[in-house]
Amino acid sequence: MLVVMKAQATPEEIQAVCEHIEHLGFRAHPMPGAQRTAIGITGNKGEVDRGNLEELSGVAEVIRVSKPYKLASRDVKEEDTIIRFAGTDATIGGRNLAVVAGPCSIESREQAFTIAEHVAAAGAQFFRGGAYKPRTSPYAFQGLGLEALKIMAEIRDRFGLRIVTEAIDNASLELVAEWADVIQIGARNMQNFSLLKHAGHMRKPVLLKRGLSATLDEFLMAAEYIMSEGNYEVILCERGVRTFADHSRNTLDLSIVPAVQKLSHLPILVDPSHATGKRDKVLPMARAAIAAGADGLLIEVHHQPDKALSDGPQSIYPEQFVRMMDEIGQIAPIVHRKLPRGLHIDTTPTETHAAHVK
Amino acid sequence: MLVVMKAQATPEEIQAVCEHIEHLGFRAHPMPGAQRTAIGITGNKGEVDRGNLEELSGVAEVIRVSKPYKLASRDVKEEDTIIRFAGTDATIGGRNLAVVAGPCSIESREQAFTIAEHVAAAGAQFFRGGAYKPRTSPYAFQGLGLEALKIMAEIRDRFGLRIVTEAIDNASLELVAEWADVIQIGARNMQNFSLLKHAGHMRKPVLLKRGLSATLDEFLMAAEYIMSEGNYEVILCERGVRTFADHSRNTLDLSIVPAVQKLSHLPILVDPSHATGKRDKVLPMARAAIAAGADGLLIEVHHQPDKALSDGPQSIYPEQFVRMMDEIGQIAPIVHRKLPRGLHIDTTPTETHAAHVK
Amino acid sequence: MLVVMKAQATPEEIQAVCEHIEHLGFRAHPMPGAQRTAIGITGNKGEVDRGNLEELSGVAEVIRVSKPYKLASRDVKEEDTIIRFAGTDATIGGRNLAVVAGPCSIESREQAFTIAEHVAAAGAQFFRGGAYKPRTSPYAFQGLGLEALKIMAEIRDRFGLRIVTEAIDNASLELVAEWADVIQIGARNMQNFSLLKHAGHMRKPVLLKRGLSATLDEFLMAAEYIMSEGNYEVILCERGVRTFADHSRNTLDLSIVPAVQKLSHLPILVDPSHATGKRDKVLPMARAAIAAGADGLLIEVHHQPDKALSDGPQSIYPEQFVRMMDEIGQIAPIVHRKLPRGLHIDTTPTETHAAHVK
Amino acid sequence: MLVVMKAQATPEEIQAVCEHIEHLGFRAHPMPGAQRTAIGITGNKGEVDRGNLEELSGVAEVIRVSKPYKLASRDVKEEDTIIRFAGTDATIGGRNLAVVAGPCSIESREQAFTIAEHVAAAGAQFFRGGAYKPRTSPYAFQGLGLEALKIMAEIRDRFGLRIVTEAIDNASLELVAEWADVIQIGARNMQNFSLLKHAGHMRKPVLLKRGLSATLDEFLMAAEYIMSEGNYEVILCERGVRTFADHSRNTLDLSIVPAVQKLSHLPILVDPSHATGKRDKVLPMARAAIAAGADGLLIEVHHQPDKALSDGPQSIYPEQFVRMMDEIGQIAPIVHRKLPRGLHIDTTPTETHAAHVK
Repeated sequence: MLVVMKAQATPEEIQAVCEHIEHLGFRAHPMPGAQRTAIGITGNKGEVDRGNLEELSGVAEVIRVSKPYKLASRDVKEEDTIIRFAGTDATIGGRNLAVVAGPCSIESREQAFTIAEHVAAAGAQFFRGGAYKPRTSPYAFQGLGLEALKIMAEIRDRFGLRIVTEAIDNASLELVAEWADVIQIGARNMQNFSLLKHAGHMRKPVLLKRGLSATLDEFLMAAEYIMSEGNYEVILCERGVRTFADHSRNTLDLSIVPAVQKLSHLPILVDPSHATGKRDKVLPMARAAIAAGADGLLIEVHHQPDKALSDGPQSIYPEQFVRMMDEIGQIAPIVHRKLPRGLHIDTTPTETHAAHVK
Repeated sequence: MLVVMKAQATPEEIQAVCEHIEHLGFRAHPMPGAQRTAIGITGNKGEVDRGNLEELSGVAEVIRVSKPYKLASRDVKEEDTIIRFAGTDATIGGRNLAVVAGPCSIESREQAFTIAEHVAAAGAQFFRGGAYKPRTSPYAFQGLGLEALKIMAEIRDRFGLRIVTEAIDNASLELVAEWADVIQIGARNMQNFSLLKHAGHMRKPVLLKRGLSATLDEFLMAAEYIMSEGNYEVILCERGVRTFADHSRNTLDLSIVPAVQKLSHLPILVDPSHATGKRDKVLPMARAAIAAGADGLLIEVHHQPDKALSDGPQSIYPEQFVRMMDEIGQIAPIVHRKLPRGLHIDTTPTETHAAHVK
Repeated sequence: MLVVMKAQATPEEIQAVCEHIEHLGFRAHPMPGAQRTAIGITGNKGEVDRGNLEELSGVAEVIRVSKPYKLASRDVKEEDTIIRFAGTDATIGGRNLAVVAGPCSIESREQAFTIAEHVAAAGAQFFRGGAYKPRTSPYAFQGLGLEALKIMAEIRDRFGLRIVTEAIDNASLELVAEWADVIQIGARNMQNFSLLKHAGHMRKPVLLKRGLSATLDEFLMAAEYIMSEGNYEVILCERGVRTFADHSRNTLDLSIVPAVQKLSHLPILVDPSHATGKRDKVLPMARAAIAAGADGLLIEVHHQPDKALSDGPQSIYPEQFVRMMDEIGQIAPIVHRKLPRGLHIDTTPTETHAAHVK
Repeated sequence: MLVVMKAQATPEEIQAVCEHIEHLGFRAHPMPGAQRTAIGITGNKGEVDRGNLEELSGVAEVIRVSKPYKLASRDVKEEDTIIRFAGTDATIGGRNLAVVAGPCSIESREQAFTIAEHVAAAGAQFFRGGAYKPRTSPYAFQGLGLEALKIMAEIRDRFGLRIVTEAIDNASLELVAEWADVIQIGARNMQNFSLLKHAGHMRKPVLLKRGLSATLDEFLMAAEYIMSEGNYEVILCERGVRTFADHSRNTLDLSIVPAVQKLSHLPILVDPSHATGKRDKVLPMARAAIAAGADGLLIEVHHQPDKALSDGPQSIYPEQFVRMMDEIGQIAPIVHRKLPRGLHIDTTPTETHAAHVK
């Protein structure tokens, strides 16, 4: 159920409607829009009596929502959600393309700094690196944990990059929310509803990856889990689905980009690195994602992929990343986007790292 | 890496080899077999020096394991794993078929007792019922939680049924391990590695459902996660995979039964209720599962499926369950199995519940 | 559109209704049932005026069919279709299980006779062998063609087995219809609509295999193509679908057996050999298919699978086939079926072939 | 097996090697390249003796090909295949993007001319329209057949567009080869090997659509079937594969574009209309295809899609097609392509048709 407020409704009227809803035993989710505010009603204790609500001051209309997701739907909020980061001009959603780049795993301070320097210089606004790794094998490298989070916090300070990293359970979620700027929920946890709910209590944006066999409805319902707990800053991410096809690790399903944008106001990024699993497919699919209208990219970059502790074969070289940024920068205006200009810090490669750039 | 002990090796020799392995910084997993003991070595800090191990007293052979899973593999343990429950003759694995039956969710004490009485009378040894439900929608019924666990503990006392119920996070895992007999990990959590590791620290058997798009290797690797933490009592469960086919909710992949049995010593059950999602497909698929060689079944039973709070359309009626037990009891000897005889308690339907049996 | 005649309608009345339908420019398909006759109306030139039809003598009811398939539907014909073969008691559909066995390809007269003798002795009523092979590679063995058809005709004479073999185009279709008893249309041709239409003009039953990614509706629509041309003797066959799972060649989807039986009167067989692609999975899946309610099996048998020119790894040995027949014979009564007793000919292995039976 | 000739080998030497191969009972496929000629050897009668071949005059090297396809492989022909059309500058493959546009089915002369005029004016070089339609239902519109072919021949004369249309069996193949410029083989016939072989005997290029569940290897093997009969002008076309995803009709698998280009010299087009099945997804996926590096597009265009006899919902309006051409024209230089300039004929909408352009 959704209460649409009149354009001229006052903050007091909105507040009164929310209190009325809560008083009835439901939960109110005010969603301010450019024109007017809509208030989503959630709670699974039964039916709301529409009559009373329509009579409250400032209410324009009460509508029953047919989609199983509400807060993620354009029915509730028509305008695109744009996620902003205090103290920077980095955004996710809106006209500016968001580029999140970095290694699969943080392996050492030196490795992380080398790669961060490259991607910052090339114009990325976000740095990604795994601290907690959900590995298929219990015997594989599981990540450096808190140590990696601290390294990435230093990277934020040094290069001005916002930090995106994955949480794999409630314990790591608390730490990621404390140290990073965006909490990533991985594909294998897309229906870990307990984790989604906890992420809904955090005050940091959540980047939610599509599960390997998730339908569009399930994907938006997973976002709804986070939003229904009060955290409305959810960023969706397509990373390939599992099919019979064997020429790429997963099958990148770019048609979900316009499909999401039709139904939901949430931004959607694309991760061509995990989808293809092969370095030589990353650039073509990165270009295709931007051309399809995605709000940005997640890209794995490594200066020594052959020595990477995880996912080396799909990491691109820094010089390929530069080329990719150039190419998507050219495609951007065709889809009414732009690549925000480089950061206002000195990103000239230092002597130590310059050798890595060919 | 796997150390195979001589048939006549003494417990002291086995102990000494384990200590040597731990001293090297690895973890030793002694797996006693009917003929001799094998010791699995896990830990991801590098290579073990095979030379030293082969020279230890009582060691027959040291072999490198090529499969990514070790403890779940028949290479480590050739004999089928049979899981026993103290104080009962209920087993999972081995000659006796294991039948786990009950409602999708525990909705009330009366509902649970009614169904338990029916399934016990028909010869089930295990009762299943959801206390914590991983629902696609945040607005759907999420289960009664601890209250449901307590109801099921009463059912164990009253009907002698062992209790199987799902844990969805670490908090519910602790409670399920305390109150139930088997901890279920659902399909959507099959690669929730954090949860798998915690389940590996519990001292109760774990029933692990195959993920919706999990390969056989990933399925066994998920079992390996639990086993690598020291809990070797893992029960696998096929419950359908996601495909393009739309005549059943998921596609039940029965060929994984002989495939698992070839590679692994772990028992495997089949859940035709979740796989098909349709009442009229449950009996045919239950018969097919037993004919294919499965170690048992998970079946949703409800006396009033139209009023069920979840999964009503796939729950069979108690009288259908009786018929199913009769049919699989006839198939059992053809695959060298048997249905253990009814429990030694009075299962005559009481007045209160008799009306439900037509 | 479907015209249901009264139970007491005379042949003349049925004939008159058909002529009326044809006169209107449509095609009439009389489908006699145990109780009464239904007449399907097909033709894509627009709407039939229901009024006139309902007034004709002997008409009970005129109903609009909502399913895209009509002639394949139980709406048109409620009773199961049983396909009979003149001069034998072999049937497909009904109480008797139909077992079709033989090599993937006919390689030589000796090979074919050796295998035919084995499968006849074990109780198969149908012999299968490829004369025209649809191979993925143009450089692979493509079959012996007409020579193979002639060898199989000899096998029919010698062992009393009915012959099932595949047609891959119109030319081979004519020859198969001339020499064999059942025309097989392979999975890759399930939507070769031109071939389906031609098969609809033949006066021999058609065994139609499900396409690798065909939905249930598409499968029944392919049968409808054959039936809409006047050939109502269609036998469906599940042979596995393509999924991400890699432990078997395809994923055998047994739940389509009860799904087909609910919607259609046509018999459905199961081919576990092509579905699994692995010898050790064939018997478990054959048992499962019969337990699920299938009308019979297609099984690849070869006495020297290592020397087979195609599909050796999935062919079972003659002694495994004997065991399979024994096992499904035991399961049959549980699903109200039976395995018809051996043929009334001398199937004692002759000297020449006896050596192959261990 | 592949014979690589020296760069300076004479035509006579090449001819002599081919004759030697044919004399041995194999088939020789000379493939002239920019640098030198390679000769593919096909035929399934056994092993070629490499020794003799290496000693022939002009031979540089004899190499064994490990891939199951040979003629379609870059091993045999390193340079991209560019297909040219006599009397025009239209090409498929190479720097120029190829755009094939038109209605799903030819419904009438007026409908076809109206659409042809629009797409020619917008810069398409190829016109597509169905004459023979492979429809899932036997009761659906099956196409106008020869009448449609004649209408399209008129369109070629009037607008200078090359004609692409589908053949569904040998009879229609002969007619399509006679009347059209490119023979299309549909997704459902990708493994209709009999049809592929016949197409291999035609002297017109063949546009081969990927089957709904075809792997990359199967796709290239289907092309190999055509090529092995002597027709080397094969154009591949990705049109979506069947997956569990339900937000688009099929899942467009763009990663096959770089995957094909790595292994094969054949051009590959993308059909976003059939893949998505929805008008509002066509432009985003068309842009994405070009950005991924495809050699061109197949697009369904209809001026009155609501009245179309087939596939209306996925046909874009002429004005959307103009916008699409503009957008891909802007993306083209980023991937080192260009959209060839408009045709040298008068494409000013005539009075009759002008009204359709808004």
